[in-house]
Order: sequence, then structure tokens, then C-alpha cells
Amino acid sequence: MDFFNVVSLEEGRRRMIEAFKEYRIGTEEINILEVTERVLANDLVAKENVPEFNRSTVDGYAVKSSDTHGASESIPSFLILLGEIRMGEMADIKISSGEAIYVPTGGMIPEGADAVIMIEHAEKLDDSTLMIYKPLSVGENVILKGDDIKIGEEAIKKGKKLSPQDIGVLAALGVYKIKVYKKPRFFIISTGDEIVDLDEKLTMGKVRDINSYALSSLIIKLGGEVSGKSIVRDDFELLRNKVEEALEISDIVIISGGSSVGTRDYTSKVINSFNGKGVFVHGVSIKPGKPTIIGEGKGKAIFGLPGHPVSSIIIFKVFIEYFIRHLMNIKENVNITTAILDFNFPSSPGKETYQMVNIVEKEGKTYAVPTFGKSGMITLLSKSDGYIVLKPHEEGISKGETREVYFL
Amino acid sequence: MDFFNVVSLEEGRRRMIEAFKEYRIGTEEINILEVTERVLANDLVAKENVPEFNRSTVDGYAVKSSDTHGASESIPSFLILLGEIRMGEMADIKISSGEAIYVPTGGMIPEGADAVIMIEHAEKLDDSTLMIYKPLSVGENVILKGDDIKIGEEAIKKGKKLSPQDIGVLAALGVYKIKVYKKPRFFIISTGDEIVDLDEKLTMGKVRDINSYALSSLIIKLGGEVSGKSIVRDDFELLRNKVEEALEISDIVIISGGSSVGTRDYTSKVINSFNGKGVFVHGVSIKPGKPTIIGEGKGKAIFGLPGHPVSSIIIFKVFIEYFIRHLMNIKENVNITTAILDFNFPSSPGKETYQMVNIVEKEGKTYAVPTFGKSGMITLLSKSDGYIVLKPHEEGISKGETREVYFL
Repeated sequence: MDFFNVVSLEEGRRRMIEAFKEYRIGTEEINILEVTERVLANDLVAKENVPEFNRSTVDGYAVKSSDTHGASESIPSFLILLGEIRMGEMADIKISSGEAIYVPTGGMIPEGADAVIMIEHAEKLDDSTLMIYKPLSVGENVILKGDDIKIGEEAIKKGKKLSPQDIGVLAALGVYKIKVYKKPRFFIISTGDEIVDLDEKLTMGKVRDINSYALSSLIIKLGGEVSGKSIVRDDFELLRNKVEEALEISDIVIISGGSSVGTRDYTSKVINSFNGKGVFVHGVSIKPGKPTIIGEGKGKAIFGLPGHPVSSIIIFKVFIEYFIRHLMNIKENVNITTAILDFNFPSSPGKETYQMVNIVEKEGKTYAVPTFGKSGMITLLSKSDGYIVLKPHEEGISKGETREVYFL
Repeated sequence: MDFFNVVSLEEGRRRMIEAFKEYRIGTEEINILEVTERVLANDLVAKENVPEFNRSTVDGYAVKSSDTHGASESIPSFLILLGEIRMGEMADIKISSGEAIYVPTGGMIPEGADAVIMIEHAEKLDDSTLMIYKPLSVGENVILKGDDIKIGEEAIKKGKKLSPQDIGVLAALGVYKIKVYKKPRFFIISTGDEIVDLDEKLTMGKVRDINSYALSSLIIKLGGEVSGKSIVRDDFELLRNKVEEALEISDIVIISGGSSVGTRDYTSKVINSFNGKGVFVHGVSIKPGKPTIIGEGKGKAIFGLPGHPVSSIIIFKVFIEYFIRHLMNIKENVNITTAILDFNFPSSPGKETYQMVNIVEKEGKTYAVPTFGKSGMITLLSKSDGYIVLKPHEEGISKGETREVYFL
């Protein structure tokens, strides 16, 4: 079988999303200490106010702002000093006109007070008299109850990959268990009579299984887990048996390899043998990455990835990462930067073209330098930080242009 | 005790590195399937060639390039076709002048051949005759043995945070166990009478322990682990006992908080009580983050971080992350991008100033928008992607300037 019905990237993605529109990733509730980089499965609604009380943002004296009007260095206001509110203490006192009380940063503002004068702008004349040298406006140096987050407010949206800052928000709200998406489970099958595993002896003509290890790492970085991996010779029955086993213990099966036309045939035939939707993408007009297969078997997604390391990584990024992000409602940008191209780059008419690049900083500017090399070279890949994309309608890019670089 | 002996960021870092110049992070050998984002502890030297044999980069026919000279569409060269080399097979045949043999992409090139003609540029006349329409140069469509990586070559440098691409390189070299730095163990102590944990009831005047959770997440992102965390009231003995316990089971102790002057005093006194180098940084001229304490106790690093969430995260990034990167020989850039400033930003003379920003894409350009808010607001932080830095000698930055943004 050849790749006659090549589709665009967009069409390939559309078919994939359509085929799995009923598909859902499960959720689990875990402790917020374990939640870094996991993806929130429900909108998080605040059940506490932050802060829970009116707080001072400075070390100073809580006062009625109206008592400070007209105060200056030359004509200070005089107030009666009532003592102090201590950190962590409930302020069970009421401030009336003409009164002040010491409050530390983060301390509770007592009833009646509506502003805090910083210690630098006040002076204790004696234990019960305070001079104030500056007028205050209402609310100055105060965070009101709920000013930061209010009860009922949507504090973090579903689909957010949780950062240290988000975990700070969860802690502020007193949330210590949270519902996130389960890690999608992947099974990776490397096909080809030439493939040997890392602990096997490399005889002449054979090559190491590179892709399944690089893909495993991409899966982990994406937030998934590898439930199994295996090398299978170019044989329909062996491949079918392994895929059937893989579908039992994973959510997504990746068949990597198929450097020979025969293997690619087997991949298609195996996917079609499960009497489901079968193969619905068979060839994509992107370069490199054309011999990509996407299909469904037993309700699960099966991807046939090209054998070249660069191609398989690009297809992983543009289809599988896209798919997972769609399933988990991730809205944030993928990890990108902008860089000035250091080279002229020709177009491939009608194809979406990907070029690996290395990011270099020169005189405060960010440049993208192409990593060229013979096809299939792994060092070419390891020297690349990311890639640039040339859309099918573009007529090449010139040196000096600024483009987005997608990190690997 | 007050912060009279404030030092610059550079001087603070210098003292820290000097104080721990004998300090080493241990190493461990782990499987490459577990190694994503871990840091390589030794230079990785290749013990295999990649590829191990001369390989074809295309589907085609291996030939002597000299036999193709002068070949064209109108005057093809005629060669004797000897059959095929199969994928993964040793090519135990020798090609002489006038002969050709089929080789698939990735297949082994037999002795005597020095180039491969793509199938598109050749045609089988019958089972033993091949016509070639194009001349080849020596080495065309061939990767020679060791072309990608040679035995003895330094394939990945010590200190590299291992990416999916690096893991591909490890696999290509047949390396399945590799020495990486152990995850540094952190113990986090939150101090303050006002701090309550997430599972406790929040009474008036109290606040949730935010920093220790945000710091835990930063530690995990940095590649460390949290060996314990605890909340301690403002009490010298309690704090000293907890720090002593923490030093037993961790490599680095973080004391977070100290919103009150009293707590900061305790932190210094506790560090000095271990009869080691004690406190050697007590106040840093950066904004925010001035009340930072760094010291040594029982041979380990102890950091006193400010209580404000923003300050504590910035101090974590500029000191603790810097320290870990130094200890692990990490040379790569931290995660940065460049962005156009969307605002004027004043300087604080003599201080290194940090401003949190949100990254916004507008018409293909990347802008940094400041996230302003009242001091101590956690949503201010959660809306920030990273920060910009203003050096002490700078006189402010103007809207429209391009600056580096450091991601959190």
C-alpha cells in the first residue's frame, strides 16, 4: 500500500478529533504536593476568601483615614495609640476616630480602621501618643477580605497545567486534594527486523531502538506514562498480537518504525483488523513525516509513526501532543519563543515543512540556526532545541525574518 | 537584628559558592527510561559507533560511484543487478565495478560500493539488469560508519539536563543505565504564629501556609525532592529543634517566612547556633527580597526566605536554583524568552529590581505586561509567567524596549 491519499495536517487533525469525539481521559484526586505539571480536570472555584480578613500590607498603624487628612511633616496629626495587634491574632478591638493601633505586615486590621500608616511616616511620642506625618486615602496599605480571591470565584480554569504559582493559589484557598486528569498510558511498539534493544548485542546491519526511547521521554514530558514497550519483527501476526495486548493495558498505541514499505502495510492491516473505524489517516503532507498512519482499534487511538528519529518526533508533537492537549482542554501555548532566522529556507510547495533549529543568543538577540545533517542522524536531533514551521502556501523564509520556534 | 550589612546579588552568590566549595551532590545510576530531565553527572563517551556500518539513507541501489559517471536520462549506465540486501541483514557480498545491489533506507552498504542511487533515478530492465539515469558522487546517500557518533567521542557533556533528544542519543549508543546527580533533598520550614496548614481550620487573623507549597513545587520543577515540611511557631527552641531534625534528612533547609522581625532574628540565631560557618549573607540589595538569610549548619546550606510569596519565589530562583545549577554543572540557559516591554519601569537606585510579568502575544510579537497588585497578593503571582530584571546601575526601562523574561 502506498500513501496516495495524503491529507493536510489540518485535515489529519480534524479526522483524528472527529474519530475520538466520545473519548475521555479519566480523572483522579491527588494531594497538591504531587500535582506539579499535572492538568486540572475541573474549574477550581474558591471556597474561602483570600484573605479571610482585612490585612495590612505594611508594618504600621491602623487608623481611620479621615483622621489623617491634612497631616504633614510640619503639622502632624496626633492620635491615641491603643497598643498592638499581633501577627496571627484576631483583632477584637474597634478603632474610633482619633485612635490608632500597631499592625504588622499581614496582620488583621481592626473594625473601624480603613487604612494603615507605615511606621516610616509616623512617630511614637510616648506609649499612648502617635504622630502622623502623611495623609492616607481609604484602603491605603490594606488588602480587604476577598480582595485577592472571593468565595465563588473561578480561581483556576480546567485544563491548566499546574505551576508552582497555581499551587500557591491552591494552598491559599486551603485546597489540599485536587482533581486532575490521569496520566494517559502509552504502549510503544518498535517494528523492523533490523531493530535491536539496548541490552542486546549489535550485529552488522542491525540498529539500536532509538525512537521508542526518545518517544518514551517525550511521553513523560507531555505528562503521560509508558505502560509498556516492545520490539516486533516485520510479521503481520506478531504485530497484531502485540497491538492487541497493548490495547488492553494502554490508552494510546504507538507503532514506531516501518522504514520498509512492508512494515507500513502491516501497520495499516493490523489497525484495520480490529473491525473498528480502522485507518482514517494514511499519509500527511508534511515534511518530514509523510508516512504517518492514524487509526482506531477497540476504541483506542493507534498511531503509526515514521522510522526516522526527526520525523517520528515531529509527528509525535503535531499529532499526539495536539491530541492529548485537546483531550485535557489545555489552552496554554505550547512552549515557544521567537527568534531571528539565521538562514534562507526554501518552501516545499503544498507541504507543511519543519526545520530543526538550534537557538543561539548573540548580543542580546535570539537567533535560530538550522541543524542540517544527513537524514536519520541522531546527533542532528540532539543538537536541536526546537523547530520552525513553514506553511504550505509560504514561498520560503529569508534570513533576518523573525519566526516562532517550537521547543521540543 | 536588622539588615544593615546588605550585599549585592553577586556578592551574595560569591559568598554562597565560596562557603560550599567542598560540597558535592551524590550520583546514582538509573535506567534511561527514568532519566528524562535528570542531570548527567559524567561526560558521556561513546563506546559504539553510530552507525556501526555504512548505511543507506534512501531506498536504492548500492554501486561504485565511478560506474555512474556520465549517466543521464538519455544515456543511462547499465549495471548487473545482484539482488538485494535486506533490512537488518549483514551485507556479506562485495560489489565490483559494473555491479549494483538493492539496499533499503537504513540498510547496510556492501563492501566495494561507495554510493546509493535512489530508486527514482534507476530502472530495472530485468531481474539482472539495472539502468542508472544520474551520476553519483562518492558517499552520496550514504552515512559512513561513525559518521554520526564515533567511538571515544564525547557525545553528551556532564551537567546536561537530559531531553528526549539526548535519550535518543543514549539509545543509539546502546547505553541503558547512566549516572546522574541524585535529587537534592529539601526540607521546608514555615515559620510564624499566623501560619496554619491546609487541613486546619482558618481562624481570624491566621493565614494559610502558601509559600511552602509553592516552594515544594519549584523544588520538584528544579529536579529536587521534598524530604519533609513543617510549620513552626515563632520560638527559638522549637525552630532550632526542627532545623536540627531537618538537617539530618535533607541537603538544604529552607526557612520560609519571618514576616515579623522576631522570626528573622530566630532564623539567624538558629543558624549560628550550629557552630559552623553560620550566617554569611544577611540581607541582599534586591527588590523584592531584601530580608534574605544564607548560612551553613552541620555542613549544609540553610536559607531564610522572605515571607511574601513573590519575594520568596524570586529568592528561590536567584539563589537556590543558581546554587543547584552550580553544584550540578548545568551550563544551559535557564528558561528565558525575549519580549517587548509594554510599560515604563522605574529603577530603584542601587538595587537589583524584579518585576513580575505576563507574556502576551499580539500580532506575532511577544509583549511583557506587568502584573501589578497589592503586595502579598497570590493572584498577582498566579497571573505572572515570569519576571524581568533591572540591574542596579540602570535608570529604568522604557516601554517598547526588548528585554529578557525569565520564566518561573
